[in-house]
Amino acid sequence: MNKPIRIALLGLGTVGGGVYKLLSMRAQEMPQIAGAPIEISHILVRNANKERPGVDAALLTDNWQDIVSDPEVSIVVELMGGMEPAHTYISEALAAGKNVVTANKDLMAVHGGELLDLAEQHHCDLQFEAAVAGAIPIIRPLKQCLAGNEISEIMGIVNGTTNYILTRMTQDGMEFDDALAMATELGYAEADPTADIEGYDAGRKMAIMASIAFHSRVTFEQVYTEGITNIHATDIRYAKEMGKAIKLLGVACNTPEGIEVRVHPMLIPDSHPLATVNDAFNAVFVHGDALDDAMFMGRGAGEMPTASAVTGDIIDTARNLLMGCTGRIGCTCYKELPVKAIDDIKSKYFIRLRVEDRPGVLAGVSGVLGNNGVSISQVIQKASKGGSSDLVVITDTVRERHIRDALTILRSMSMVRDIASVIRVY
Amino acid sequence: MNKPIRIALLGLGTVGGGVYKLLSMRAQEMPQIAGAPIEISHILVRNANKERPGVDAALLTDNWQDIVSDPEVSIVVELMGGMEPAHTYISEALAAGKNVVTANKDLMAVHGGELLDLAEQHHCDLQFEAAVAGAIPIIRPLKQCLAGNEISEIMGIVNGTTNYILTRMTQDGMEFDDALAMATELGYAEADPTADIEGYDAGRKMAIMASIAFHSRVTFEQVYTEGITNIHATDIRYAKEMGKAIKLLGVACNTPEGIEVRVHPMLIPDSHPLATVNDAFNAVFVHGDALDDAMFMGRGAGEMPTASAVTGDIIDTARNLLMGCTGRIGCTCYKELPVKAIDDIKSKYFIRLRVEDRPGVLAGVSGVLGNNGVSISQVIQKASKGGSSDLVVITDTVRERHIRDALTILRSMSMVRDIASVIRVY
Repeated sequence: MNKPIRIALLGLGTVGGGVYKLLSMRAQEMPQIAGAPIEISHILVRNANKERPGVDAALLTDNWQDIVSDPEVSIVVELMGGMEPAHTYISEALAAGKNVVTANKDLMAVHGGELLDLAEQHHCDLQFEAAVAGAIPIIRPLKQCLAGNEISEIMGIVNGTTNYILTRMTQDGMEFDDALAMATELGYAEADPTADIEGYDAGRKMAIMASIAFHSRVTFEQVYTEGITNIHATDIRYAKEMGKAIKLLGVACNTPEGIEVRVHPMLIPDSHPLATVNDAFNAVFVHGDALDDAMFMGRGAGEMPTASAVTGDIIDTARNLLMGCTGRIGCTCYKELPVKAIDDIKSKYFIRLRVEDRPGVLAGVSGVLGNNGVSISQVIQKASKGGSSDLVVITDTVRERHIRDALTILRSMSMVRDIASVIRVY
Repeated sequence: MNKPIRIALLGLGTVGGGVYKLLSMRAQEMPQIAGAPIEISHILVRNANKERPGVDAALLTDNWQDIVSDPEVSIVVELMGGMEPAHTYISEALAAGKNVVTANKDLMAVHGGELLDLAEQHHCDLQFEAAVAGAIPIIRPLKQCLAGNEISEIMGIVNGTTNYILTRMTQDGMEFDDALAMATELGYAEADPTADIEGYDAGRKMAIMASIAFHSRVTFEQVYTEGITNIHATDIRYAKEMGKAIKLLGVACNTPEGIEVRVHPMLIPDSHPLATVNDAFNAVFVHGDALDDAMFMGRGAGEMPTASAVTGDIIDTARNLLMGCTGRIGCTCYKELPVKAIDDIKSKYFIRLRVEDRPGVLAGVSGVLGNNGVSISQVIQKASKGGSSDLVVITDTVRERHIRDALTILRSMSMVRDIASVIRVY
């Protein structure tokens, strides 16, 4: 039998705990699964003296030097999250010739290129399947199974918290605040939910996937993000009337003018496979020139689903170690494509206005849209209380800057009491 | 730059033509995608003199010895299908130390174990992503990304022809024969559709997936198969009334008593992700202990989707060649689990009977079911013409042999004119 492969876990929170548990569950079979036993030799924690039931206390350390200077450690598994000290530790591990597995999307979405270069210099693996969409295999499929494709589009529901909130708003008619409170109570939302509800978390995942799919580095700062805090139950009801669902979608397209990459709420037809992805589930939809359409669905977060992805990477790295081929697949960004500004992107829009309830209003609104080159594809007008109507318009495809100009004029008109919502339409 | 990797294609039919086309489309980028140019040096065809527009005639040969004895050929890509001569060619290629990529499910479902052993002996890759579910990445995800899981269940719509036929029957109310004729006309069904409509094709794919998922060799002969030729538009209508869809499903479960693996029509709830997979699309649903639920959807057949999977395998093998690590992942069957007989499997059943239209019939039928330990969960009874009624029953979970006993008695009763359909229920 091959001698054990020694790994160090950095962090023992939800994900770290899950990986510890899963490796223990599979320990007996690991020689057959990975080719050698996989032994955790260190666990880096902030407080090595805190009691942790079920965890071998002898493995705990609060000293990174114990790990990086131990020549027996061949895989460092970073599960602390955030930028520092994760960035430093991963860089030092790679520089010391250690392979790295990480679930850190924040870090990979900003410093992915630099870290992958460092891994390549030292012939090390840097694997990060768990950084995008939890348990769903997507990094490896994009880098390997679909490598023969020119991928033109990726669309994803890649944040479980917001998908849970929108599902409650859709299925139970809840308003955003109540659905968020429920998500928090059930542990789907963190104490500070900003990164989720503002679309930053999804934006990081889209940066990582766009980089791989289009072979060109995209960083988080280049992703346009818009969250779901302005979505109302009313919008969802009108969308439903029009045969559509509202989802927080990440969209990445490779166009002849450059890469589009953005996260925002979007109306999609009820018949689209992503429309049926509910609750905390994630899904990634991919279009490639040979592949045509494919979709990958599963759990995007949580202790054991994330541990599934991390453990898959550990096993793959172990196999590479045993075959002497670590660094087998490094950075796949060999192009330098421009990223388009959001103003240059074209979309259809759902616009919900509260207007005066009198004749001529529809003509006035549609006139302003028409003058700005925005044509209308669908309209619903409904009287509501207090002498005002709801006017809901879905436009044809229009450039982002034109819709903004039209909205500015509409906002100044006396017949328009309020522009309640502006949401993109697939 | 690395020197070109030379490959030979065996077969230039639909899939072979697609791979030729896709490799030509990607030729310029291949050094960056795979690490080296990939050059087709031979194409084995039955008639090397036939004119083939768009294909370099100098590559064509009808002599297998040209290929297997050429030390420059490092990857043999078998796209002929069927058992012979594919079996002999793949064996000889591996014995000569050549890596093999194949899309051949017939062969892998029967001789997969033997061929993977041979590949291992010669430190070669034997990759077969295209053998299951066309473009959908499923072999590599199961072997690598999900390797940390104990997988307990795989359910799949893995035959596009039958899914297309059932979709037409469901959406347009067509009968089987008409839907099959339409599928044939559109090129979704072959001239001899037996392997598709009888479930053999799906059975081969389930044997391959079950072997990988449960780490224990399952061959095609061990898969229980039942096709869709007995499904009627009436069954689909009643299923719809009960909130269910009828799909041809492959099911593989790892139970404490052994592996269950079977292909048959099945009623699944409209809310199940597989229920929304229509037309010629395929999908594979996987449950693992860490992963929870995941689903992979995409094109299960066709020239370019299959070429996508084959090309992914060629690129992966090329990377292994360049890193000197071919044979990196071989056979993953390290257990020897028994496969259960269909008689021992438990299911719920949808039973549609034509019965005499008189009082006491429901009591009579449910009495027979009850005496055989079959309890009823749902009933629909509708008068139809000629003094007979449709009686549709969904049972609770029952062992296969008990339902057979009950059906034998029902068939002998005078009040039962006909047992029109017996279909399993998820």
